[in-house]
Amino acid sequence: MTDDAKNLKNIVGPEDIKPPAPVAEWVGDSETGFLRLLDQTLLPEETLYIDCSEATAVWESIRRLAVRGAPAIGVAAAYGMVVSAQGISEDDFLTELATAGQYLISSRPTAVNLEWAVNRQMARADKSSDAPPAEIRRILLDEAAAIHAEDEAMCLSIGRAAAPLICQGKGVLTHCNAGALATGGIGTATAGMYVAHASGHVFTVYCDETRPLLQGSRLTAWELNLAGIDAVVITDNMAAQVMREGRIDMVITGADRIAANGDAANKIGTYGVAILARHHDIPFYVAAPYSTFDLDLPAGDAIPIEQRGAEEITEGFGRRTAPRDIKTYSPAFDVTPADLITAIITDRGVIDPVNTDNVRKIIVA
Amino acid sequence: MTDDAKNLKNIVGPEDIKPPAPVAEWVGDSETGFLRLLDQTLLPEETLYIDCSEATAVWESIRRLAVRGAPAIGVAAAYGMVVSAQGISEDDFLTELATAGQYLISSRPTAVNLEWAVNRQMARADKSSDAPPAEIRRILLDEAAAIHAEDEAMCLSIGRAAAPLICQGKGVLTHCNAGALATGGIGTATAGMYVAHASGHVFTVYCDETRPLLQGSRLTAWELNLAGIDAVVITDNMAAQVMREGRIDMVITGADRIAANGDAANKIGTYGVAILARHHDIPFYVAAPYSTFDLDLPAGDAIPIEQRGAEEITEGFGRRTAPRDIKTYSPAFDVTPADLITAIITDRGVIDPVNTDNVRKIIVA
Repeated sequence: MTDDAKNLKNIVGPEDIKPPAPVAEWVGDSETGFLRLLDQTLLPEETLYIDCSEATAVWESIRRLAVRGAPAIGVAAAYGMVVSAQGISEDDFLTELATAGQYLISSRPTAVNLEWAVNRQMARADKSSDAPPAEIRRILLDEAAAIHAEDEAMCLSIGRAAAPLICQGKGVLTHCNAGALATGGIGTATAGMYVAHASGHVFTVYCDETRPLLQGSRLTAWELNLAGIDAVVITDNMAAQVMREGRIDMVITGADRIAANGDAANKIGTYGVAILARHHDIPFYVAAPYSTFDLDLPAGDAIPIEQRGAEEITEGFGRRTAPRDIKTYSPAFDVTPADLITAIITDRGVIDPVNTDNVRKIIVA
Repeated sequence: MTDDAKNLKNIVGPEDIKPPAPVAEWVGDSETGFLRLLDQTLLPEETLYIDCSEATAVWESIRRLAVRGAPAIGVAAAYGMVVSAQGISEDDFLTELATAGQYLISSRPTAVNLEWAVNRQMARADKSSDAPPAEIRRILLDEAAAIHAEDEAMCLSIGRAAAPLICQGKGVLTHCNAGALATGGIGTATAGMYVAHASGHVFTVYCDETRPLLQGSRLTAWELNLAGIDAVVITDNMAAQVMREGRIDMVITGADRIAANGDAANKIGTYGVAILARHHDIPFYVAAPYSTFDLDLPAGDAIPIEQRGAEEITEGFGRRTAPRDIKTYSPAFDVTPADLITAIITDRGVIDPVNTDNVRKIIVA
């Protein structure tokens, strides 16, 4: 065991490692408090927080992606239900709360964690239907804090499993943002970095800028830099050269959806990075919570690939960079086949090697 | 032989295939004429031509990259010497012409073709030193036209060799711009596309946008689109997915410098594309004139990799897209090893397989 790995043993709880910036947090009590959200649309240029005292402000923030990333949206929605519970009539409290929940869900109907968090809060409120509204608001705030704490714990579990791998090398490459900014805790792909950093390990993270929406340069580089981790931005097409120069000891990315055999859908470009890593004999890891697994999908080829609009490519950041009448092709995701993935690091354990049996063993258990 | 390949046989000379837009051309005679340059800095938004009647205008255009690409700069400089010859004293003509030549070279001292074209023009003028200045100006214009025609012929040779390969498939991927815009003719990597298109073959060219400077989306997509070739812009990190979907039958790129063993330096990202092509069993071709070969370099690892400034990554799209204090790493080129290159298509023949013996056979012959 290395000294770094020994240091990891001393890191015992979430209190030791905090995300560099709170994505969503509750300020005050359940009666007069509010939800404070980091406005991620302004990063990396401005660090601005939105204080949401009205359900409409929460709805708007989720809608316009001020908060993004499945786990983070779940946490924001859980607190959003407390905000909603402050602004409704005491007479018909539970009915109005249910309506408020549907309203919140409508801000981003495809976000699975949003609906999940709202439904969990409604179930909690229904269970306490005999209590006065003020008591239910207190219960909802406790439940939101519990959801938040579970998310922090999920991130920390992944981080504790991934950190020893990070500590084996000096250079890490990541793609897109599966970071603290996407969760209520220290992220998924980034979790091992934060834990390794807290243990005193010194390393460099190469952040693919991740066209077209630049989540790598705008978000991942921002949060790692803020945490004091050595972050270096490269364009996506530099990854191969950086690997060839021996600067990368491991690749770690997040995942949006993982099939039963371990095939992993993630931001466009991830599959290419996995091929480059294989070519250079560099381990390629995926970090994701167990909730990312969709065991009803036998393999990744069943995952539909969403197409994005042309303007993200042709005029992504303030000026036009392609002819006006040009065609584009813009898959939002790609699927990295299990055989290119060295291991999948989850909050329930490490899947290594990646195959249907091992996925079942770790995830269904 | 396919019908497409048969059609290629009927395409006999440069008069059959013209570049979609003239990069550099002479308008008028040697006494009152001028050099017309396409201002490539304004593409793809504006198509503007600069008429250079003064040596300073030529100097300025080369300096600020209105004309770029080694062959195109050579052609512009050759015509630039005619412009220079119009503006100098008749008394001390050859001495002043030599001074004007040095001035032109100073616009971009690292451009090998610039110095080569100026020196060739000076040698031609010196050979006719007994002739009156007006006669020398006529001779210089003839020589510039000859340099231009040689460049057109070089492109066409490459195009005729590459077109049968293009005609074997329906999807081509290219990286950066080794196009008509970089030469006096139909380009190098694009030459086969223009010839195949002229022969009636229908195909799609996927253009990597080529971060950080976006030559693929700004230039390659523009010129192919203008020529009526089906061009589709993708971000660099989409190449792997596009290959996986079976859309790509071949990759073809240019090269900046090729070592004696066939290792090829080209725009950053080329090496990664070559790895992705190999992974998907897609042939990867390099197209380049024989002048690109540097036989004094035994292998590509001797080619120095220039580093570019951070701002091209952090504010390349008109606004800042990375934290202000972030580190970047920005190699301008990478080297694709010969064993990833299916063949190198030159104006002197096709090098296949790519190795030191075959390079010598084709290039030194």
